[in-house]
Amino acid sequence: MAAAAAVADEVTVLHGGVVVSMDGGFRVFQDGAVAVAGDRIAAVGPSADVLSSFPGAAATVDLAGRILLPGFVNTHVHTSQQLARGIADDVDLMAWLHGRIWPYESHMTEEDSYASTLLCGIELIRSGVTCFAEAGGQYVSEMARAVELLGLRACLTKSIMDCGDGLPPNWSSCSTDDCIQSQKDLYEKHHNTADGRIRIWFGLRQIMNATDRLLLETRDAAQKLNTGIHMHIAEIPYENELVMQTKGIDHGTVTYLEKIDFLRSNLLAAHSVWLNKPEIGHFLKADVKVSHCPASAMRMLGFAPIREMLDSGVCVSLGTDGAPSNNRMSIVDEMYLACLINKGREAYITGTTNPTALPAETVLKMATINGAKAVLWDDEIGSLEVGKKADMVVVNPLIWSMVPVHDCIANIVYCMRTENIESVMCNGRWIMREKKIVNLNEEEVIASAEKIARDLLARAGINLPNRMNYL
Amino acid sequence: MAAAAAVADEVTVLHGGVVVSMDGGFRVFQDGAVAVAGDRIAAVGPSADVLSSFPGAAATVDLAGRILLPGFVNTHVHTSQQLARGIADDVDLMAWLHGRIWPYESHMTEEDSYASTLLCGIELIRSGVTCFAEAGGQYVSEMARAVELLGLRACLTKSIMDCGDGLPPNWSSCSTDDCIQSQKDLYEKHHNTADGRIRIWFGLRQIMNATDRLLLETRDAAQKLNTGIHMHIAEIPYENELVMQTKGIDHGTVTYLEKIDFLRSNLLAAHSVWLNKPEIGHFLKADVKVSHCPASAMRMLGFAPIREMLDSGVCVSLGTDGAPSNNRMSIVDEMYLACLINKGREAYITGTTNPTALPAETVLKMATINGAKAVLWDDEIGSLEVGKKADMVVVNPLIWSMVPVHDCIANIVYCMRTENIESVMCNGRWIMREKKIVNLNEEEVIASAEKIARDLLARAGINLPNRMNYL
Repeated sequence: MAAAAAVADEVTVLHGGVVVSMDGGFRVFQDGAVAVAGDRIAAVGPSADVLSSFPGAAATVDLAGRILLPGFVNTHVHTSQQLARGIADDVDLMAWLHGRIWPYESHMTEEDSYASTLLCGIELIRSGVTCFAEAGGQYVSEMARAVELLGLRACLTKSIMDCGDGLPPNWSSCSTDDCIQSQKDLYEKHHNTADGRIRIWFGLRQIMNATDRLLLETRDAAQKLNTGIHMHIAEIPYENELVMQTKGIDHGTVTYLEKIDFLRSNLLAAHSVWLNKPEIGHFLKADVKVSHCPASAMRMLGFAPIREMLDSGVCVSLGTDGAPSNNRMSIVDEMYLACLINKGREAYITGTTNPTALPAETVLKMATINGAKAVLWDDEIGSLEVGKKADMVVVNPLIWSMVPVHDCIANIVYCMRTENIESVMCNGRWIMREKKIVNLNEEEVIASAEKIARDLLARAGINLPNRMNYL
Repeated sequence: MAAAAAVADEVTVLHGGVVVSMDGGFRVFQDGAVAVAGDRIAAVGPSADVLSSFPGAAATVDLAGRILLPGFVNTHVHTSQQLARGIADDVDLMAWLHGRIWPYESHMTEEDSYASTLLCGIELIRSGVTCFAEAGGQYVSEMARAVELLGLRACLTKSIMDCGDGLPPNWSSCSTDDCIQSQKDLYEKHHNTADGRIRIWFGLRQIMNATDRLLLETRDAAQKLNTGIHMHIAEIPYENELVMQTKGIDHGTVTYLEKIDFLRSNLLAAHSVWLNKPEIGHFLKADVKVSHCPASAMRMLGFAPIREMLDSGVCVSLGTDGAPSNNRMSIVDEMYLACLINKGREAYITGTTNPTALPAETVLKMATINGAKAVLWDDEIGSLEVGKKADMVVVNPLIWSMVPVHDCIANIVYCMRTENIESVMCNGRWIMREKKIVNLNEEEVIASAEKIARDLLARAGINLPNRMNYL
């Protein structure tokens, strides 16, 4: 057992559970315990040892056979798109973007963004997420207000574009200087707030909406402030083709970003579906992190070379993307999908599936410690270790959806559903306890979001065709 | 509104919901109602009309904005494999079959089969299934006993093999005559029992375990008894290669089955992944029905030409397969997967995904009316229509996982999770009511199954390697 000095009467001991630590040695304590002091983990080990180390603990919680895991990290989430669930299903990419998403996002108000982030946050918590990386929205201050209330940890990012065709009028006027300065202002205002749970990152929507000057100044500004950059990279074949045509290079976005010396270890590359082998090498060399979003990839983008990236040593994490790209915002489902899709993808490569590709333990790593590395926070989260922040999930495996449990790790990845996520702690505080969201009135948020979403769609002039004969 | 004559004081009216009928006109009643008399639907239509038709109804249930759907039909389920959840993840196909599944299944007792079917049935009900097609197990009488108790509707099938290499000793001795006769006996004993909820079908495990005589006598026996045949067909490339080598034909199992005049409209072909265009034509011509199992396909088999089959007019339904192939036994998840995987598969065919492939309404059809056709029961189930059996699902869309509901049909397919399935009726009786399984003690079944499963694995000598460092 490892333990840190802590004042016993401020300690809570969770004991009698299967503690899946995800530490360097991938230790699993079958009758394990974790002691929490304030916002940090004070001890991890066998229940008997941890309990005897803190005889005067303020509280003890008997996990009664439940599984304790590090909180999941969702590394690509559009919180502003939660109210757009179901507005863009089964349409081609141009209709998706120009007919639905841009009208929706460009008509959002600050209040809409707050409501959307609250609704999204509830779904994140219910799927065991304690930390997420925002993919980029308009109103970062409203996201921060919602995250502070929800009790989550987040790397928040503004959606940044300084060029590109077909943008909504109120978006196309942002100069490169304004793009950089507005993010510095957000950093100043919100970075390291909410008891240190909120960090501000730099955003870049995608290469087709970024001048070279924006790319390079973002790189330098982020480095100076010691924070990260979140960017959609190599999403569709068309993106690579356009970059090849306009930039005179021999393969896609990653080749170009390498050429202009943009790639750094603080870059979180979302999707990264259409990479060739040299480009995987560029990511590895620069230690760029990847957010793999399986559902969104299958729906709209394609098969990312995830096995190849992992085999080569690239840090690959998991994300849900936004509601109109998925629409389940559940990292639990993404774990399941990551296993399935990357096994099936081998048929695309070799003519037959490979059921051994991306085994359960690899995928669980992607959702925890790799996620923490991707958001540059693995010194404090991503595993259950002494001194790290107490970000944890309590899973009840003893219900119909996971029984029998012959192989605990496999069942977590292949069987677990949001039904099994019982309690969630972030920064040492429960944010869901026995399925109840702690810090807000869930019913009120849902009822309000439903109305706000309806109004927003009407304002944006989005009319959805009927799929059946409505009477 | 359509209504049948019914004695009012035996009628229950469910009203005030969104009734998605899945009838021939795909009518959706936005403030709709269904009247149930005995085991059948007596009326479907606008709430006001149905309520006024039965002023003396014995009971009225206010659905308060919930969605009412026909019960889902899961057309490929190994109920006997439920206790094997998690025993065969991330291993290659030969290890899966010879090292895990055959030892497991061949060591099962009748009591194990009963426990496995009960546990599986709970998961089926919780995912909104009212009717399933068993893929083939050893102890059909035990399945029937469990199905009768659960209140489900099912087409039960024995796993039949009269040849093949490497079979467990206690399976390899079944003669062709015994294979046919044992199924006739089961038909005699169980067909049309449990208030007509149970039907007995003929089973064929797969072509590598069936002599030509077994194939043709099964065809004739099923035709004579006016029942169906359930068979795994064209699962992996190796199967087709072997058939080509040994039978002297130019492509796979379906080509051979067509050549020997085996294909009939009462055949339910499971998986059917590796079919070429002429073989799809053979299925269409004979009106063979297909069970598409997306999760299992992605994990172990490959990409079935589902869009091509649907485009050509083949009836394609949805199945979960068995727990060690999936492991989520949820038709709700399979709907989501069917949309995702068949959009992603287009990248495999054309170089880029097609987000318009398999739209939500098509997939909902696969899980309801196509499922009913696949199990040869569409005269009585698969849609909400007057005179059909009252097999229905009540979905609550007003929680975090489905809100906002801009596009009801899209949300059912892309967002709905088992959390949203609130109540399930089969044959006019509630089998789950407000999330409570009605006909058995769920906690007892689960606790018992966990123990029985552990004992079975020990008896079968199956030891799973540790994925992490267990302490």
